[in-house]
Amino acid sequence: MDLKRVGNQTVVFSSPPVILASYSVVGPMEGRGPLGKTFDKVWQDNINGEKSWELAESKLLQEAMQGAVEQAGIPLSQVDYMLAGDLLNQIISSNFAARKLALPFIGLYGACSTMALGMAVGSMLIDGGFASHVLVGVSSHHDSAERQYRLPTEQGGQRSLSAQWTVTGAGSVLLGQSGTGPRITAATLGRVLDYGETDVGNMGAAMAPAVADTLLNHFQDLQRQPEDYSLIASGDLGMVGADLTREVMLRSGMSLGSEYTDCGLMIYDKSQDVHAGASGCGCSAVVFAGDIMQRLTAGSLKRVLLVGSGALHSPTSSLQGESVPGIGHAVVIEG
Amino acid sequence: MDLKRVGNQTVVFSSPPVILASYSVVGPMEGRGPLGKTFDKVWQDNINGEKSWELAESKLLQEAMQGAVEQAGIPLSQVDYMLAGDLLNQIISSNFAARKLALPFIGLYGACSTMALGMAVGSMLIDGGFASHVLVGVSSHHDSAERQYRLPTEQGGQRSLSAQWTVTGAGSVLLGQSGTGPRITAATLGRVLDYGETDVGNMGAAMAPAVADTLLNHFQDLQRQPEDYSLIASGDLGMVGADLTREVMLRSGMSLGSEYTDCGLMIYDKSQDVHAGASGCGCSAVVFAGDIMQRLTAGSLKRVLLVGSGALHSPTSSLQGESVPGIGHAVVIEG
Repeated sequence: MDLKRVGNQTVVFSSPPVILASYSVVGPMEGRGPLGKTFDKVWQDNINGEKSWELAESKLLQEAMQGAVEQAGIPLSQVDYMLAGDLLNQIISSNFAARKLALPFIGLYGACSTMALGMAVGSMLIDGGFASHVLVGVSSHHDSAERQYRLPTEQGGQRSLSAQWTVTGAGSVLLGQSGTGPRITAATLGRVLDYGETDVGNMGAAMAPAVADTLLNHFQDLQRQPEDYSLIASGDLGMVGADLTREVMLRSGMSLGSEYTDCGLMIYDKSQDVHAGASGCGCSAVVFAGDIMQRLTAGSLKRVLLVGSGALHSPTSSLQGESVPGIGHAVVIEG
Repeated sequence: MDLKRVGNQTVVFSSPPVILASYSVVGPMEGRGPLGKTFDKVWQDNINGEKSWELAESKLLQEAMQGAVEQAGIPLSQVDYMLAGDLLNQIISSNFAARKLALPFIGLYGACSTMALGMAVGSMLIDGGFASHVLVGVSSHHDSAERQYRLPTEQGGQRSLSAQWTVTGAGSVLLGQSGTGPRITAATLGRVLDYGETDVGNMGAAMAPAVADTLLNHFQDLQRQPEDYSLIASGDLGMVGADLTREVMLRSGMSLGSEYTDCGLMIYDKSQDVHAGASGCGCSAVVFAGDIMQRLTAGSLKRVLLVGSGALHSPTSSLQGESVPGIGHAVVIEG
């Protein structure tokens, strides 16, 4: 059997899976941001009648995943696997969404990199011949994340300027073996790197080295340059992490130009006062499922590199004084 | 492309991946149990010089994964992916082990079903042509799990008779595209089912319906009977869950005979007073990596069905009054 691997860390799909549909559901603050019109559904408030923020997050995910399936016009019974993950302990939002959808379920954890990870693994399942349709989705919720990772939101504690704002939102894509839509042509899964950052108010710095490592491996494996992409979107490094990624890349002899941005810099307006930008599994997921997919479909983007970035700490590990490991997973999507 | 799917939920591998090596590391209590001699390494105490139980758990996993690679005699640089998961929030044991191994990393969450899930997904990555070697490992630790899910162990609270004891241990397998060893020939990934069990001291009851569902789908998809297996091992339902699984299967017209057991019933002696048996990601992992692998290799087991079972709740969801969803993932291993 010929391996589909190229170089150290990259796989190139022999029959690139198609993104048959995508769907995004966000909270009101995300709806008011610059990408507001690109989302499929905007909730009027952050809880939408659910009993808890955690159940609201799961509902966001469920709506996004069902939305993608409905938009593709594929019966749920033809979906072979559901891949999902989120930030909450024991990925409870995903487990509860999987309880509703009752599909064979693969739970993933890659923090904010989970959307890219799911798209990569889902593509492997399809291109490997194990599935004709794979549903991928992730979620995050500002209030459930704050409660778990930081402080009660009711307390109104001051956030550091390097902190990012967790997106309330869920994004989903339905991947298919054949059909019409942008295709996932390659993927570079990343390694866990830890440069000793212990400031949990500066996740961008913790993730930047791993993202740069994945980018460098990706370009080297495929013998490509940043200019070979119409868009390179990391998600979500925020202002500090995106700047650091540019710097690490430059010191490694590779300059990221105007094609590079970060999903965490796209979703909120400056007036929304989120400090270093957006974060959360849902951030890159809704930016991809909304804005990027629309531009790929319209033809204004030809080849996109989505680089999910995850901070792989836990509140417990941080309280125990451990530093924050980072990871970056890249997928190539071509219109 | 021909799909490798058979029936509703099962995939059959065209070039079944080989288990090139397995490795298990356990705590002292597991070492004193009936399977004590089957483990590769037994720690003298539960913390082994680490600063915390959480770091000790991560060390268990790291030792198991490195052990499998060393036993196979494969350089770490030839391992394409590391798949790992555990019970701790944000799978921190796995993230920290991945930080040490620095391999392209896929984080999984399936609670105690994660070993079977990892073996299934890892096999798909190999049979799909994306990897020549995949390293799979999971861990659990009695004290880190008690601290997170239940009460301080120092308190010595009374456990209910249906409660299971979380195994301190980590198990790992190195899968290869070719070579000598037992082969993974098929996999049936499960759906999340929830029959409304809210007693977190009775995980067996919460998981049994999902395990039975996966078993029934597996047998139907492959047109097989329980007797077609020399061993069917769920992991880990414990006494209550294993009995319930037998009963649900019987009511569905299928009788599980003496070939059926549960990994949670194998690892401790009755005198060890663990009530309904063992649990934790590490339980089915070390039973498989030790005892079952040794019997497969010796030829006394021909065809094994390992059915990982997971309780997909979180402490938060239980405090919020939610019931406990369950899942079962099955892999077929042939000697």
